[in-house]
Amino acid sequence: MAPRPPAEPERITSTANARIKRIRSLRLRKERDEAGVAFVEGIRTVAEAIQLGAPVETLIDCPELLRSNFGRDLVDSARSSGIEVIEVSEVVFRTLSKREGPQGIAAVVRQEWERLQDLRLARGERWVALEEAADAGNIGTIVRTCDAAGADGVILLDHTADPYDPVAMRASTGAVFTTRLIRATFDQFIDWARAQQVTVIGTAGDAADDYRSADYGERTVILMGSERAGLPPERQRQCDRMVSIPMLGRVDSLNLAVATGLVLYEVLEHRRRTGLA
Amino acid sequence: MAPRPPAEPERITSTANARIKRIRSLRLRKERDEAGVAFVEGIRTVAEAIQLGAPVETLIDCPELLRSNFGRDLVDSARSSGIEVIEVSEVVFRTLSKREGPQGIAAVVRQEWERLQDLRLARGERWVALEEAADAGNIGTIVRTCDAAGADGVILLDHTADPYDPVAMRASTGAVFTTRLIRATFDQFIDWARAQQVTVIGTAGDAADDYRSADYGERTVILMGSERAGLPPERQRQCDRMVSIPMLGRVDSLNLAVATGLVLYEVLEHRRRTGLA
Repeated sequence: MAPRPPAEPERITSTANARIKRIRSLRLRKERDEAGVAFVEGIRTVAEAIQLGAPVETLIDCPELLRSNFGRDLVDSARSSGIEVIEVSEVVFRTLSKREGPQGIAAVVRQEWERLQDLRLARGERWVALEEAADAGNIGTIVRTCDAAGADGVILLDHTADPYDPVAMRASTGAVFTTRLIRATFDQFIDWARAQQVTVIGTAGDAADDYRSADYGERTVILMGSERAGLPPERQRQCDRMVSIPMLGRVDSLNLAVATGLVLYEVLEHRRRTGLA
Repeated sequence: MAPRPPAEPERITSTANARIKRIRSLRLRKERDEAGVAFVEGIRTVAEAIQLGAPVETLIDCPELLRSNFGRDLVDSARSSGIEVIEVSEVVFRTLSKREGPQGIAAVVRQEWERLQDLRLARGERWVALEEAADAGNIGTIVRTCDAAGADGVILLDHTADPYDPVAMRASTGAVFTTRLIRATFDQFIDWARAQQVTVIGTAGDAADDYRSADYGERTVILMGSERAGLPPERQRQCDRMVSIPMLGRVDSLNLAVATGLVLYEVLEHRRRTGLA
């Protein structure tokens, strides 16, 4: 029997198509949260998602825009590994894209969340908790830094920005697909930390303990506040320990992702010194 | 003699006004470079510029948009300290602003650059040099981190992005107005460093020396490469020493500003250990 030619992919040319409208709606966090998916675009980010084994539900291919061999191979290998591919016209793709120079490839990826009540920290494990962090780029950079520094995951508290925001996903350079993520309220988080005997380390400019000489405990969550206001005093009081990063100049704070990176790499050093890493 | 009422401020209502056109052109780096000035907007950034003593040439006030008492006071105190204030209509201000919700206050600030050939590093001093860093937000964050970590200034090499880009200035939270800045080519920089016996420390993921145990010398420049490609091998060979930051996860690099922050704070620690800070 002669091999069957591959089925013609579905091609969508109407910007009013129901699926396209649904995908377009994912630029709103509310819609992403409800659908439990995210929209990623661009050759690099889509390649990261596939290579890192992210749960890609649908690949969107615009052949008129996606010309590079690497990009075409990405579509072919996704299709042959069973990922649904939908083909769209250039007009349709441009209504989905948020980029100035759209590359003609995008994907819908399922969000993956764990539940706080299921989380148990092993000895040496460390997480970051973000309280009201507002900047999606910072969230993505922090997720990327967690991956690099050997931290296990990020707990996003209260109104912290969405790690599945396109800006956050790009800043994470793929780490959003490999880092463990949990959402909770601050109160749920503190109750959990006390029940689990996890050491919660907060940061503030005026804390007495220098971050270089602090004891981070064996099971650690680094709690970081918002870009504008840091950790409010009532949250600081609920931490097991507060640490500060020296500020020698005129500015009164560091960028949130830089500050988080400094503390995370300090915890890594602490783990090495104490034989826990 | 009765006190004279204050002179009516000049009010510009035409978007085609020559001064407005000149100010509007400052969104282009080429125009900023030629004029040697920068455009800052928003209550917070303008307040930082004034409070930190930046050379403000002109304050732009749009009374219809600038309603807050703090903002009005800022205009009044600028005027009484001799800064030229021009008043513009809301229509004109909106053609100057790059913000979605313009706050009605902006300023033209003179850029301040030092010359590499005049730079002499004292014992303990450390600078950052950026080679082809492309992201204005990163540049501003690095300037902010330099200020916090007690570094003295930033040398921007080759096609590195502009610290006077509005995005960079905002990310610097005012530090762009207090941090010493120099522009040079890479070759000029290396010639200068050799003549001055400055230790140039580069970073790369595969460098043998861990950044935590490196010898940073007494007069130090930390050389960082671009976001995408890092330091090219031929640049690495021109460094006195290369250091690496451990990468324990799946991503192959850190955000440029996070990596710079880790090394700068390590140099600070090194200075403290060696009595140089």
